[in-house]
Amino acid sequence: MKNVILLGATGSIGIQTLDVIREHPDEFQLMSIAFGKNIKKGMEIIQEFRPRFISVRSKADASLLKERFSEIEIGYGQEGLIQASTYDASNHNQTIVLSALVGSVGLIPTIEAIKKGYDIALANKETLVTAGVLVMEMVEKHHVHLLPVDSEHSAIYQALNGEKTSQINKIIITASGGSFRDKTREELKKVTLKEALNHPNWSMGSKITIDSATMMNKGFEVIEAHHLFQLPYEQIKTLLHRESIIHSMVEFIDTSIIAQLGTPDMRIPIQYALSYPNRLELKRSKRLKLEEIASLHFEVMDFKRYPCLKYAYDAGKTGHSFPTVLNAANEAAVQLFLEEKISFIKIEQIIYDALNKHDIIKYPDLETILSLDRQIKEYIIKNYAKGESS
Amino acid sequence: MKNVILLGATGSIGIQTLDVIREHPDEFQLMSIAFGKNIKKGMEIIQEFRPRFISVRSKADASLLKERFSEIEIGYGQEGLIQASTYDASNHNQTIVLSALVGSVGLIPTIEAIKKGYDIALANKETLVTAGVLVMEMVEKHHVHLLPVDSEHSAIYQALNGEKTSQINKIIITASGGSFRDKTREELKKVTLKEALNHPNWSMGSKITIDSATMMNKGFEVIEAHHLFQLPYEQIKTLLHRESIIHSMVEFIDTSIIAQLGTPDMRIPIQYALSYPNRLELKRSKRLKLEEIASLHFEVMDFKRYPCLKYAYDAGKTGHSFPTVLNAANEAAVQLFLEEKISFIKIEQIIYDALNKHDIIKYPDLETILSLDRQIKEYIIKNYAKGESS
Repeated sequence: MKNVILLGATGSIGIQTLDVIREHPDEFQLMSIAFGKNIKKGMEIIQEFRPRFISVRSKADASLLKERFSEIEIGYGQEGLIQASTYDASNHNQTIVLSALVGSVGLIPTIEAIKKGYDIALANKETLVTAGVLVMEMVEKHHVHLLPVDSEHSAIYQALNGEKTSQINKIIITASGGSFRDKTREELKKVTLKEALNHPNWSMGSKITIDSATMMNKGFEVIEAHHLFQLPYEQIKTLLHRESIIHSMVEFIDTSIIAQLGTPDMRIPIQYALSYPNRLELKRSKRLKLEEIASLHFEVMDFKRYPCLKYAYDAGKTGHSFPTVLNAANEAAVQLFLEEKISFIKIEQIIYDALNKHDIIKYPDLETILSLDRQIKEYIIKNYAKGESS
Repeated sequence: MKNVILLGATGSIGIQTLDVIREHPDEFQLMSIAFGKNIKKGMEIIQEFRPRFISVRSKADASLLKERFSEIEIGYGQEGLIQASTYDASNHNQTIVLSALVGSVGLIPTIEAIKKGYDIALANKETLVTAGVLVMEMVEKHHVHLLPVDSEHSAIYQALNGEKTSQINKIIITASGGSFRDKTREELKKVTLKEALNHPNWSMGSKITIDSATMMNKGFEVIEAHHLFQLPYEQIKTLLHRESIIHSMVEFIDTSIIAQLGTPDMRIPIQYALSYPNRLELKRSKRLKLEEIASLHFEVMDFKRYPCLKYAYDAGKTGHSFPTVLNAANEAAVQLFLEEKISFIKIEQIIYDALNKHDIIKYPDLETILSLDRQIKEYIIKNYAKGESS
């Protein structure tokens, strides 16, 4: 039995994590959750799973829940998130924190959980993009496991099982191409929010769906892989694979490639992260039938078509404060696009400008990272929100 | 450094094994070899690698080699094969026997090497088809490793690295379809030996190329997998995959599939078997570029189109003496076809007849297996060799 702490319980990953926990009541116990503003969904979760601690975004929502669930401890805001992520169930079971928060807000609660000695199942890739060096140092220092929940990184983690990382030649991260993979650069100028939110293979939250359409999501995955598997960027490749069946691959020095395949079902990597090093049955998941899919396709990833991917490689290779800027600029730009304040194509322009303007800060500490993240976002929200000018 | 004993040195697998040894003089030392009648090739190998023991088929060839290489120990025939497979280098290195003999002749040398405590790299699948139960019992009793050299089984072995076999849902063995995959049953009646020997993806010995065309090779692989991975036949599936890029797959209980991919280069599984649990560089192997291959295809395996595959499943499931009959009948029939004494389509008819006529012998011991193997072959050679009658 493992204690599970779930940050981002009402989102897409959160709901699927609860589905995994529901299937395995003898393996996992939900101890603590955090969610944002979706109180209705949150209350359903509380009624079903009866966690011992709940954190919500606002004080008002916390008071509302306190009236309804007087026996449960309740927190709110940043403080509440930290209480949720470090909740101590005071039993002898291992605790794992599944972080499915969106954006850099996931950083501090994850760090606090690591300090507490909890294993981390990470669906919040922004944590490693914005502060990968610091987070990996803490993972090592506190001897915790950091397990990826992204389907791509889970695939690589599974492919590396039993292998030596020193014998890796390269890893190959596959990309579906996102909502706009068949559009030219010219056509991208006219796309709408609704079109952008329509991902061909995966049903995900809105921010990551936009990140997939710009290919920034793949860029983040490259940076995440760099930290998780401690590989130089030269050994991390991307490959366009429309069907999202091969979730990623590892090529070893003997030219042998190990790949992980499956239907596009996030419950597979979620459960793997929770059950690792074991595997458990996943009854309601559809089994992959390659004879029905009939063919799989692969194409070169075009950096000119997807400049955000190039920005991510560049920011990652330069390192230091650049990945923080990349992530903050992207987060702010995507927010503006989701609020229909800028066009789709403007997202990459904003990121390009932010990186271009930035003077490197070497070896940033946590405070510097948080302050830089805030500054970049504020600047962008303030300067780009009023139409297309800048 | 490992001592390597190579049985079948002048064949396709043998030559590629020597290529692997040549690339890694600090890892492998060739101690002992056996080959058949190709004295010219054999002498080249002896001159280059200077093994300490050589076995050939005939006494005359042994005498010839003795004149030329007076300092090397030389044997011949069945006795020579056993001396070769059990050769004791009297050093402290681990010894591995790569058995690339063709047909059931590989059985006894392999068993004797197991008794000697040597690890086995098995390219001779007939060993496990004809006497899988006995061989696996000996592997367990003598605590040796049995490593597959077949690309499919090597793929499964690699996919299972770090995994628990109890968490396998099924294994999926891929099949290229062989030389005649695009021919109808009707068209098969007119095919020639030359056409049959022209495999679309792999360059292999003649017997296995014919076995691929009849799909008996895949049937043997199913039986081999049953023994190697100790799985019931219901958990062993086959899938038509024309490109031979995914060499095989394992589906786990959580629906996750791990696959091994690579260019069709037998040196990859050969080297993996020799270097296991390590991987070594394989410099001259072409790296797989999926973006160049562009697409992979998968089709249901049709048992009506490939009756030999069904015979293999049936013989495997019935067990006891049936797999021995399957293998012996196939070996004799393929020999007749290679000698152009029967038509291609007759191969499967001969196998069907042999299985149909056979009365089960339960729990056959080694002597029974060897005697049955001999009887079946003699009967077929005698009765079918004169044209298409019987």
